[in-house]
Order: sequence, then structure tokens, then C-alpha cells
Amino acid sequence: MKARDYKAEHFLWSVDDEGVAVLTLNRPERKNPLTFESYAEMRDLFRALVHAGDCRVVIVTGAGGNFSSGGDVHEIIGPLTEMAMPALLDFTRMTGDLVKAMRGCPQPIIAALDGVCVGAGAIMAMASDLRIATPRTKTAFLFTRVGLAGCDMGACAILPRQIGQGRASELLFTGRVMTADEGERWGFHNRLVEPDALMDAARDLALALAKGPTFAHGITKNQLNVEWDMSLDAAIESEAQAQAICMQTNDFRRAYEAFAAKREPVFEGN
Amino acid sequence: MKARDYKAEHFLWSVDDEGVAVLTLNRPERKNPLTFESYAEMRDLFRALVHAGDCRVVIVTGAGGNFSSGGDVHEIIGPLTEMAMPALLDFTRMTGDLVKAMRGCPQPIIAALDGVCVGAGAIMAMASDLRIATPRTKTAFLFTRVGLAGCDMGACAILPRQIGQGRASELLFTGRVMTADEGERWGFHNRLVEPDALMDAARDLALALAKGPTFAHGITKNQLNVEWDMSLDAAIESEAQAQAICMQTNDFRRAYEAFAAKREPVFEGN
Amino acid sequence: MKARDYKAEHFLWSVDDEGVAVLTLNRPERKNPLTFESYAEMRDLFRALVHAGDCRVVIVTGAGGNFSSGGDVHEIIGPLTEMAMPALLDFTRMTGDLVKAMRGCPQPIIAALDGVCVGAGAIMAMASDLRIATPRTKTAFLFTRVGLAGCDMGACAILPRQIGQGRASELLFTGRVMTADEGERWGFHNRLVEPDALMDAARDLALALAKGPTFAHGITKNQLNVEWDMSLDAAIESEAQAQAICMQTNDFRRAYEAFAAKREPVFEGN
Repeated sequence: MKARDYKAEHFLWSVDDEGVAVLTLNRPERKNPLTFESYAEMRDLFRALVHAGDCRVVIVTGAGGNFSSGGDVHEIIGPLTEMAMPALLDFTRMTGDLVKAMRGCPQPIIAALDGVCVGAGAIMAMASDLRIATPRTKTAFLFTRVGLAGCDMGACAILPRQIGQGRASELLFTGRVMTADEGERWGFHNRLVEPDALMDAARDLALALAKGPTFAHGITKNQLNVEWDMSLDAAIESEAQAQAICMQTNDFRRAYEAFAAKREPVFEGN
Repeated sequence: MKARDYKAEHFLWSVDDEGVAVLTLNRPERKNPLTFESYAEMRDLFRALVHAGDCRVVIVTGAGGNFSSGGDVHEIIGPLTEMAMPALLDFTRMTGDLVKAMRGCPQPIIAALDGVCVGAGAIMAMASDLRIATPRTKTAFLFTRVGLAGCDMGACAILPRQIGQGRASELLFTGRVMTADEGERWGFHNRLVEPDALMDAARDLALALAKGPTFAHGITKNQLNVEWDMSLDAAIESEAQAQAICMQTNDFRRAYEAFAAKREPVFEGN
Repeated sequence: MKARDYKAEHFLWSVDDEGVAVLTLNRPERKNPLTFESYAEMRDLFRALVHAGDCRVVIVTGAGGNFSSGGDVHEIIGPLTEMAMPALLDFTRMTGDLVKAMRGCPQPIIAALDGVCVGAGAIMAMASDLRIATPRTKTAFLFTRVGLAGCDMGACAILPRQIGQGRASELLFTGRVMTADEGERWGFHNRLVEPDALMDAARDLALALAKGPTFAHGITKNQLNVEWDMSLDAAIESEAQAQAICMQTNDFRRAYEAFAAKREPVFEGN
């Protein structure tokens, strides 16, 4: 697959010459809600990125000053209230598969967040590798507000590892907003920048990663996933194998040669 | 079991019409130490709450400006120094069972903490879902001070997930006090309030949870427990199943209908 | 093994009468890089400490105002670029074994950090139990800068548990410096002290631990390791057994007798 040839139907998608892709949720008049179709298309796209050599980093963001209002109340929640279990499980597995696909592609994903970031939108932010937000970003895992549990798309597993078990418990039981300041203080957001600097900050970070050893980045991401529930000893052995693989890449040699020649390395992702 | 009919022997117990229970450790002249009997009674009570439909949230607190001084030196530590292994293991398993029972009941548990919160008292705070404390709360996992290891009642597993592995290591190796400010900054306490506002703050939070979808809250709590050591993919599948179950509750439908009618949902916990 | 009789070849090593050992990386003119030989010697030494009853706590530090610049570019990275897989895996397993040995010895390890703390130096800091640093300490997991992945010696498993998954992801993907202030705020450093107070602070903390129940400390450390990937219930049972063992030590009885006699306990580590 060529990432830059992909024509998105339910969101905006672009890939620049440096391999930085931008996925923009784009129904700004309703704060970029998700639909059955956009869930499924994003899941398929992130899965396809495993084989997209021309895409090195992905930025996910939203149009019009908000990230996402989550699952659309009329287009998703209404229909769900009338489904039988097999169809419900089809749906919850599809949304879970979006998180699996975001974690499963080798490209680091940077969430560029502003304004409303709630429900499935908060989950997509959580499922990203890095998060840059603005002071006005409001993040809420508000499933409890619609009568559901906090355990949506991996939240009870992932959020506690990002912000601690006690803070995650509060957000998931109450559905309350985590302010941008709290998000930064608690380790959810990596950084806060002003709204008009958001996309530049995200692109600068993406570009820095895209210029790095991208094969190795994919290994880093995989190890962050697979060591989740390994014993300490198993994790250390797993890293010994993974890093030995990286030591046979040309990027490792390129870095050493650049160092010896006192110049900056130019990585090629192989 | 009707929670409101329960007559406690070794602590105070009350349940109001909203389903908010308050468990008060009540030997204030000695800062509310625990005894063999109070451990066992609390373990049995939390286990029974699994079947107590009239109890939606539990507040644990202490009388007289302190939470708890932990296992009583004379009534517990003295006898333990003279026991053989089978009796010792009976005791450590009983105390561990209290934590299992607190984690195992579906009701969210809010610890309302003030003053001394040490030893098994600190563990009960840690085993709760949410913690509200006062600026004068002093929390110490002081097992090392009595010649024991920091691994008491799950502390080496739970505390690192709440405040990070490095900070937990310091508290468990040294037994030193974690100040209230540290506790808030590190994510142990969800919030600090002044002593005279403590019980109101705990009740307000409890009431908010009691008015929520309590069946779903129980699912949230269960998932926070069982995903502890799951792989990422297993956790996501587990949440797909758990959330699909919640989508068949009436509370989910009630929330949607309330939204469509532009009114607040009234949840019934089913 | 008598720890105080050990003659180190590739670093400085001393053990005082209180059982506090100090391991000093000592090539200050190059900021204390590691070599194949120093990795191997440290691995063997930490493994031997399992049987060194005269060593109660270990401080690891660096000479000349820096902790460590990590694997030497000329002595390690150069040769690695020319090795075949079996030799590469030998190397990555050896470095991983250093972390396993640091986690596997019963003595708590305190890292006393100043200045440059990067690459394998950052890993050694991470693998310690406690970290005291100075305001000028710069910590970087800079593997990505040399074309490698962030998964080195357990970093993708351990660092997220110390500072959270999101912050760890940023450090491991970008290789950027974590400032001392960030390290303290995020829970990596337990405390910051001025450079000229660093070794005194580390020794005071080490001495406090050395005077504690050192058998129990070893149990605490073991439990922090082995509960890493246990279920909640398994962890609680494991602690019930571990703490029951500690209740049969004389240090537990000594603490009780000292309490009854209103004096400070004198622990002997048995």
C-alpha cells in the first residue's frame, strides 16, 4: 500500500514527502463525532499502514478547534439501544479493533488535541503514542454519563498506566472532564501549546521522528505493546532480541559512521 | 443481604436511602487501630456486599480526626510474635482477604482520610477506589519499622500502579510518611479538602456515583481489577464483551431516551 | 563472598562497616562510559551480592560530576556494527543481565546521579531501586540517536511503570533529555539535592536502610520484582506468604520488644 495514494471517505488524509501523515476528523459543525463508517475506515487504514513504507509518522487531529465528541448520539448510540447481543459485540469489537490497529501499526501516532476530546475521542487520544494539547482541551471518558461502564476500548488497561490507577479510576467512574492542566500534570498530555501553535508543534515532533530510525521506532512501539504484561525477566530477554535485530540495521551503522565523521546521521529506516 | 440491616460489632456502619454506606473505624482514643476481629468482620462485610442491592457506594473513614493507626501493637503484633507458621499464614491471608474483598465488591469505595493513616490503615486507603484526604493526613506504609517487609496485603503490586514504581519503592523500603501534598501530587489522593469539609466532599462524590449507572460501575471496577495483568489485546477483547453487556442494560436506554428528550437521565442500576 | 574483600578492576568499590557499598564509575575524563569489561564485571558483582552478608545497601555513582555517558562509542558501538547476530545477541543479553542482576540482588540500590546520565547510564539509574539526583542531572534514553530502538535492557517495561506510559513513550521515541526537574516531578528521581550534598544524602539514606530489617528489605525488593505481572489476587497471596516468612524473623520480635520497652529497635537482618 502507498499511504499517499489512499483516498479517505470519512475523514481527511494527507501524507507529505517526509512521510508525515495527517488524519483529520472533519465534521466540525458537530465537533467531529465518529460513526460506524468512520470507525471501520480508520481501523482498516491503521491496519494497512503496517505495509505502508511511505508513511513514517501519523498525526491524528480534528477540524475546527475540537478533536472529537466521540460516538455520535444519533448515528451510533440510538441504533445500539435496539441491537441484540451479537450485533452489540460486533460493534464493541470493531471499536476495540480501532485501538488494536492504532497500537499495532509501526508508525508512532501523535494526537494533536484541542477543545472537545471525549468518549471515543478521548480513547483515540489515549491509544496514540504521544499527545500534544492546548490549554482549552477538555478530555472526558464520559461513558458512565450514557449509562455504560468505563471499560471502553481498553480504557481500564491503558489509562491507569498513563496517569496512575487512582486518577484513572476517578475519571472512569465519574466521567468528569480532565482539564488540560491536569492532563499535563498527570502525564496524559506530553505538552500543552497554544491553539495556533498546535499543528506546527505536532508537525515538528512528527518530522523529528520521521527523520529518525523508523524501523527502530516500529520496534520500540511493538515492545511497548508486548511487554505490557511480561515478567521483568521476559521483558529484558525480549528487548535483548529486539535490540540485536536493530543492531543489524544500516541505520545503526549510519549513526556510527556519522559520529566518527562528526556529522549528523541521515537515517533511512532500514 | 440487606446492607442497611447489618449490625456491625467492631466499627460503625450505616446506609442511607440513596444507598451510600459509611463504615467508620471507631476507637478514636487509640486512633482507630484494627484488631483480629475488625479485620475479619470487614472482610466478611465487603464479601457480603456483592449481594447487597441496597448499597451502591461505600465510604470508609475514621472517627476523631484520624483514619487508622493500623494493626494494634498489643492486640495483633504481640500475639503474632509468638505464633507458628500456619497461624501466621492464617493471619496474613486474612488481611489479604480484606483487600480482595474490598476490590471484589461491585460498589466503588471512597476513602475519606484524615490525620493518621498508617500500616493496615494505609493499605485500606490504597485498596479503595478513590481517596479524599485533608492537608494533615499522614500516610505511611510503615511495615519496615516493625521489622517486616513492605509487601503487605498487596502493597508491592498496587502502590506502584498508583504512584509509580520509584515513589512506591521509597515508601515501602523506608516506611516514611507520605504527606498529603505528596499524596495529591503523586496521584494517591484524588483531592485534598479541609477537615471540616471532608465528609461532605466524600458524601457528594458518593451520591454522584450512587445516582449513576451502578451496574456499569460494578463492571468498571471488575475490569480495573481483572485487566491488571492482561495483555493489551486481551484487555481490549475483555472490554468489548463487558461493554456489550452494559449496552443491554436499561440504564443505557434510559440515558439515550433522556438525551433525546433533553432531560437528565435517571439511572436505576439495571 | 565477602563484599568488602572484592577487588574491582573496572570501577571503584568500597564497603563500610555499616554494610553500605559504593560502586563508582571512574573514567571521569570521558564521563564514565561503560565497556564490555565493566558491564560484565558489574553483572558478576551484583550476582555475587546475593551471597554477601556483609553488604546491606549499594550506592551506584560516577566520578567527576557525571554519572555515566553509557556504552562507549569507540569501544562498544564501533565493534557492534561489525558483529554477526550471535555475537550481537551475546552483547544485548549481557547488558540485560546487568539489569537482571541489579534487580535480583537483595540489597536495595540507590543511584546517586549528577551531570550526564545517558544511554546505559540512564538504564543503570532506572534499574536501581531509588534515585537521588542533582538539579544539573540530564537523563536521556538516547538509543534512538544511534539508530537503535528504545527497548534497551528493559526500558520499555520499567520506565513506563516509573513515570507513566505517555512520558516514557516520549523519552524512548525521541531520545530527548529528561531534565532533573522533570525527573523529580514525574517520579523518576526520588529527590534532588545540590551536587555537594549528593553523596551525603545518598549515604544517609543508605545508612537508614542498612539499619533496617535487611532480610525484610530483600523480600520487599523480590516482591516488587515478581509481582510485576501477577494478577491482583496472586500478588496478594504471594505477599501473604512473604510477610508470614518475615514474621518469623527475629527482627520482627526485636521491633516488638523495643516498642514494649519504649526504645528504638536494633535490627540484625535475620
